[in-house]
Amino acid sequence: MSRRSLLGRTAAVAAGATTLTATAAATPASAATTATSRDVDVVIVGGGLAGLTAARDLVAAGKTVTVLEARDRVGGRVLNLALANGGVTEGGGEFIGPTQDRIKALADSLGVATFPTYNTGKNLLYKDGKKTPYATDGLLGSVPPVDAAGLANAAIVQASLDDMAKQVPVDAPWTAAKADEWDRQTFESWLRANAVIPSAKFLLDVACTSIFSAEPRELSLLFVLFYIAAAGNETTPGTLERLTETANGAQEQRFVGGSQQVPIKLAATLGDRVVLKAPVRTVARSGGKYVVTADGITVTAKRVVVAVPPPLAARITYDPLLPAARDQLTQRLPMASVGKAIAIYDTPFWRADGLNGQVVSDTGVVSSTFDNSPPDASYGALMGFIEADEARAYDAASEAEVRAAVLKDYVTYFGEKAASPTSFVLQRWNNEAYTRGGPVSIAAPGVLTQYGPALRAPVGGIHWAGTETSLHWMGFMDGAVRSGERVAKEVLAAL
Amino acid sequence: MSRRSLLGRTAAVAAGATTLTATAAATPASAATTATSRDVDVVIVGGGLAGLTAARDLVAAGKTVTVLEARDRVGGRVLNLALANGGVTEGGGEFIGPTQDRIKALADSLGVATFPTYNTGKNLLYKDGKKTPYATDGLLGSVPPVDAAGLANAAIVQASLDDMAKQVPVDAPWTAAKADEWDRQTFESWLRANAVIPSAKFLLDVACTSIFSAEPRELSLLFVLFYIAAAGNETTPGTLERLTETANGAQEQRFVGGSQQVPIKLAATLGDRVVLKAPVRTVARSGGKYVVTADGITVTAKRVVVAVPPPLAARITYDPLLPAARDQLTQRLPMASVGKAIAIYDTPFWRADGLNGQVVSDTGVVSSTFDNSPPDASYGALMGFIEADEARAYDAASEAEVRAAVLKDYVTYFGEKAASPTSFVLQRWNNEAYTRGGPVSIAAPGVLTQYGPALRAPVGGIHWAGTETSLHWMGFMDGAVRSGERVAKEVLAAL
Repeated sequence: MSRRSLLGRTAAVAAGATTLTATAAATPASAATTATSRDVDVVIVGGGLAGLTAARDLVAAGKTVTVLEARDRVGGRVLNLALANGGVTEGGGEFIGPTQDRIKALADSLGVATFPTYNTGKNLLYKDGKKTPYATDGLLGSVPPVDAAGLANAAIVQASLDDMAKQVPVDAPWTAAKADEWDRQTFESWLRANAVIPSAKFLLDVACTSIFSAEPRELSLLFVLFYIAAAGNETTPGTLERLTETANGAQEQRFVGGSQQVPIKLAATLGDRVVLKAPVRTVARSGGKYVVTADGITVTAKRVVVAVPPPLAARITYDPLLPAARDQLTQRLPMASVGKAIAIYDTPFWRADGLNGQVVSDTGVVSSTFDNSPPDASYGALMGFIEADEARAYDAASEAEVRAAVLKDYVTYFGEKAASPTSFVLQRWNNEAYTRGGPVSIAAPGVLTQYGPALRAPVGGIHWAGTETSLHWMGFMDGAVRSGERVAKEVLAAL
Repeated sequence: MSRRSLLGRTAAVAAGATTLTATAAATPASAATTATSRDVDVVIVGGGLAGLTAARDLVAAGKTVTVLEARDRVGGRVLNLALANGGVTEGGGEFIGPTQDRIKALADSLGVATFPTYNTGKNLLYKDGKKTPYATDGLLGSVPPVDAAGLANAAIVQASLDDMAKQVPVDAPWTAAKADEWDRQTFESWLRANAVIPSAKFLLDVACTSIFSAEPRELSLLFVLFYIAAAGNETTPGTLERLTETANGAQEQRFVGGSQQVPIKLAATLGDRVVLKAPVRTVARSGGKYVVTADGITVTAKRVVVAVPPPLAARITYDPLLPAARDQLTQRLPMASVGKAIAIYDTPFWRADGLNGQVVSDTGVVSSTFDNSPPDASYGALMGFIEADEARAYDAASEAEVRAAVLKDYVTYFGEKAASPTSFVLQRWNNEAYTRGGPVSIAAPGVLTQYGPALRAPVGGIHWAGTETSLHWMGFMDGAVRSGERVAKEVLAAL
């Protein structure tokens, strides 16, 4: 891996700006302070993968575009973190897997290569205070080896969920024949009635927090089924297994140089069309156009694409008011709660113990880990998700407190060597101004059936994008890219 | 009733401004355009009952105060509507009942009198296409006469809910012994397991939509139990019956001149401390103080009271950022969905048929009505609630379409005379910029147990008020007043 591809957080931002400078008169960072107004065909709110992809397609179609990004960097929930050793790791979305065709195509087009997530050796189950390594290529795939009754129960539950998910149209989950029944109960209620063996309930709980960074009680059963249905593409239906697996699943591959290379390189192709440090405050219709006001810049455009998560879209002032259905939807799609903690070691020492670095645990601030070491294993990186209730419990803790709690877990799972990382990086999305949670918006009972149609329906000249609006791989980078491609088509048809 | 007390919507605003002019140099309406900055002890965001009550208590304690109100009127969810016949009716909160001591004391202090809600004659049940008048003072109170099995089942369910509610501490519902159990399921799931007779389920569904303007599937069981527990005062525990009843219940009395007389008269005592048309955009800490920026005015203060509903508080930009617990809470307390439709007739003609104007129906855009005629019955007013799914179904409809649908219901319930009102007024809270729903924020499963403590916890010098923060009568005018009194004490202790 080249030094270039190991650009870290600060370096990555600078690289983005540098690249953009090379292709444009103004750097994005300075644009917000120097450019006070622009008039374009389409203004895009949000410089994540969705907004940038939409911009790419609109520019390709000959339209003038401005992307307004609140942060001093592009990528949204996709973020490279610089390491003290010169390496890079990811604070946000990092994995890519089968049927995630659109993020793959985008990365290919930008020359960002993938490599397999480290998956050699055994997974580790930590349950009831006991460590059990287990093979991930057995008859049960990588299902942790709980008791036989629990495994049988979990298999039935998984099959039921997949079967129900097949009955949920991804473009309109609220039209499923049983939508009302599935949207009136929490996933927790359904699990309690179906995952009746405690160890089966444990497996499903772990799957839930791993997938959504939310507890089963926070989710509508219909929303869970939609999310499973969306874990595929136009020809391959989604399955729960594809969401949870590494091999042949959503965690199969990673990006060389870190996933943020994709939005950084994409933004570079857009030059000074991307304006950083420009949080949007108002979207106002004026005559036949829209005036979008951000800190430091005002953009007039024929069409507006809002490509930020629904609860953040709610914080923009719209004039005229949005329809109640859209506004109340955005009151009802909160961000889940997630953090990532990455400990860096001289070597991926767990590999010598025959472990692949992937843990499933019934305790700890981190109950799910991955080996985030670089492809050449020149150093070791243990990445742990801090999810749902655990994320909330540690939101207000100091970084030192989180570090101590995380390393305690890592020692429990991987032994004393884990106690002394060479460095430690932490990303808590709940504390980020322009995300306020993650990885994705979640829906409680009653939301999809009453408000679902407002997810994508344009309001006048305002169009909605973002992974939450995707028919496939909602919550993933692929969903973000798909939503950008869809909204660009929508806008082009309307212009 | 005097002409003065019958001030309507426009007239009421003018009266407020006029009264304020009489006691202060600047009118509130002009203050936003003329006053560009103020420096006070406490700035209050929101001129509803909560914010105005807090202002009253802080001023009484010798503090300097500014109230910033987004609208061109005070009162928030309490609103008088002018009628073509010179009368007044209410578009928002209107009722007051036993144990609602604080709104009563406030109204008394301002000379706003109450009168009994019209409750003479029979209620009407409309179910399965059949009308059944029934006495409201029988053994079963005003429970609609469904089949005996349903009545028995409903009585058991009601007793269970009251019993469980008694186990919920109103100051910390999340500490109830069974909080986790009750906060992991929807009210719908619980009802389906307990209200097993269809007619009992119907009665509880009607109670739910009437109380919350939300469907049982949208609500956490724990939230419902808290709401019941809160329907009392410090010495009298809340009950479901007190929420649903007219006699001896939350709908027992009304205010002479319309409920908005209370905030209007309260605001008049505050003079030009109240600034209208000043929607707050940012709350920023600066040195040891806070700078609160609204359209047209900036206020510097030692303390800030935010007295608007949680989802609207989320739309203010805070610097520094709010803690994640507070921010994510406000992503998870959406406003319910409600409208009110009032048809005006020459006389309350239904009274001659022995009816009190109160309907419970299993169909219609309006399934719950009241006789909103003035005390002297100089004209007739039929008020209907448009709730939950019905409110959402009609959010985007024209007023003419809503009127036609409502009058069709009124004819069904009260006969052909209802087809020809002399006037018709409609208030749809979902479509209001500075409410976006109503009557109150609701909580889905998982919200109170994870985020409840953030409801009232001050963040630095920022304090939270509004009926959603009250220990008693959350969702009611009384809760708003209580929250204002509580927050004033909190601020005074901190100043």
